[in-house]
Amino acid sequence: MIRKLIDGIKKTGAPIVVGLDPMLKFVPEYIRQEAFSEFGETLEGAAEAVWRYNKGLVDAICELVPAVKPQIAMYEQFGVPGVAAFQKTVNYCKEKGLTVIGDIKRGDIGSTSEAYAVGHLGSVQVGSKVCTGFGEDFATVNPYLGSDGVKPFLKVCMEEKKGIFVLVKTSNPSSGELQDRLTEGKPVYELVGEQVAAWAEECMPQEGGYSYVGAVVGATYPEQGRILRKIMPKSFILVPGYGAQGGKGADLVHFFNEDGLGAVINSSRGIIAAYQQEQYAEYGQRGYADAARAAVIAMREDIARALQDR
Amino acid sequence: MIRKLIDGIKKTGAPIVVGLDPMLKFVPEYIRQEAFSEFGETLEGAAEAVWRYNKGLVDAICELVPAVKPQIAMYEQFGVPGVAAFQKTVNYCKEKGLTVIGDIKRGDIGSTSEAYAVGHLGSVQVGSKVCTGFGEDFATVNPYLGSDGVKPFLKVCMEEKKGIFVLVKTSNPSSGELQDRLTEGKPVYELVGEQVAAWAEECMPQEGGYSYVGAVVGATYPEQGRILRKIMPKSFILVPGYGAQGGKGADLVHFFNEDGLGAVINSSRGIIAAYQQEQYAEYGQRGYADAARAAVIAMREDIARALQDR
Repeated sequence: MIRKLIDGIKKTGAPIVVGLDPMLKFVPEYIRQEAFSEFGETLEGAAEAVWRYNKGLVDAICELVPAVKPQIAMYEQFGVPGVAAFQKTVNYCKEKGLTVIGDIKRGDIGSTSEAYAVGHLGSVQVGSKVCTGFGEDFATVNPYLGSDGVKPFLKVCMEEKKGIFVLVKTSNPSSGELQDRLTEGKPVYELVGEQVAAWAEECMPQEGGYSYVGAVVGATYPEQGRILRKIMPKSFILVPGYGAQGGKGADLVHFFNEDGLGAVINSSRGIIAAYQQEQYAEYGQRGYADAARAAVIAMREDIARALQDR
Repeated sequence: MIRKLIDGIKKTGAPIVVGLDPMLKFVPEYIRQEAFSEFGETLEGAAEAVWRYNKGLVDAICELVPAVKPQIAMYEQFGVPGVAAFQKTVNYCKEKGLTVIGDIKRGDIGSTSEAYAVGHLGSVQVGSKVCTGFGEDFATVNPYLGSDGVKPFLKVCMEEKKGIFVLVKTSNPSSGELQDRLTEGKPVYELVGEQVAAWAEECMPQEGGYSYVGAVVGATYPEQGRILRKIMPKSFILVPGYGAQGGKGADLVHFFNEDGLGAVINSSRGIIAAYQQEQYAEYGQRGYADAARAAVIAMREDIARALQDR
């Protein structure tokens, strides 16, 4: 799937992943009303609203970007119907040729991480049959439990040619409370970055290039991004925090390798709720998908400019 | 819910939580066959098998223990039908008066953690209605992202009188790779333990006693348990790793406070798959629930003996 991601980036010229994180307040009123009138103001109604909203977004952006990243929390908030909407979204995005990064941030002890790996990236044996659960292409993984929480994912990645992004330095303000702590003279994020580099070496596609194992490093920490880029040369970096969280194009250049690859930048509300911003207000709620399209194009240009200027 | 948990421990004399982590290989053959014959060898069939197995277990142990801890990974491996079986299990356990600890190990940046908190412990606004998602009583939370990943859970805990257990020192062999690293002279788990103690102070029930905020510390690390017990005096400690992972009754005493409370010990496969152990083989697969019952009683006695001898 790292091949599919890279091919997609080259084809679209956009190292961009659109975060499908549908808070209900982002969903245009008319879509909410349609869904509620059919399914009631229920979890099912909310899940249906989210799904319709996503479908419109995906139709509008699928030719422009290589990948999407649905954040499963935004679906879990609506219980089982929400999780079903996550599944529909994953399936639809794959049908449209998009690479799907499940932002699930799972991580547990060995046998439990194996269940997550199998459920999200692999397949599970049921009697004599092999069944597929959520079926994302990539998943995000939390490293707090150490390597036995990550290794089951590596195994599935090798078997299925799927990929993971391990949390290294997250984009949020308090990420430093733990991740920046110095241990033996270096911050925790460097330590985890070194682990990622080792896992990346273990999980290379046959044809070489970039590993199945990537990392998450927030756009809000460009200096750390520069250091981590060097520590993990074979890993793609998934970079959240652009746009709404404050990251700008110029902050991103150090996340890329010299080959112009190695990073994929996420924007969520900056794209999916663009129509709620002053800049794109002219689109109105019925033009929410076109507003998202315009925001993707602006983001692509912002990144291209920054990369040209470096 | 901390009140409900403590009352349950006192009533049963068992500071025990049964881990409902149903791998298919634990489910008796006859239950699998029944489910597959109705639903096929499909995700739905697997989910149905798991649900029937759980129901039998819950019926057998609900008078003996205060709490259960379904591990959501074991359900997610079967996709959306699996997650629906998780929900049914949560609902059924609550009906039976058990405290339900959702072992979900979630944790993300602020607004995303809020979605998890709301989806698992709280309720969500849908139009003019308030809806409840998964509705566990407690959830486990991963601290890698720092306090802004935890605070949304604290808010929901205060509003709903629910609780969390923050991962501090996990039971798995590689937990030390990150958690034992020395930072400013102390290991990461102590640092996180101090954060938990501070969050615990912020989230006290009106009547005092134990906080809504607890911690996870593995039975496999009794020495660290002793230290963390002192660092987090007002937190309940959820202790996994008893039994199958190698923890023994004598290892557990330091996890408890002088009042005999403050810890709840989890056992998963040691109870739910007891019938597969030599010791309980006489029960056979059709006696799996009775074997689980016998294993709970043995565990209760092991812990009581250890606490008496301390």
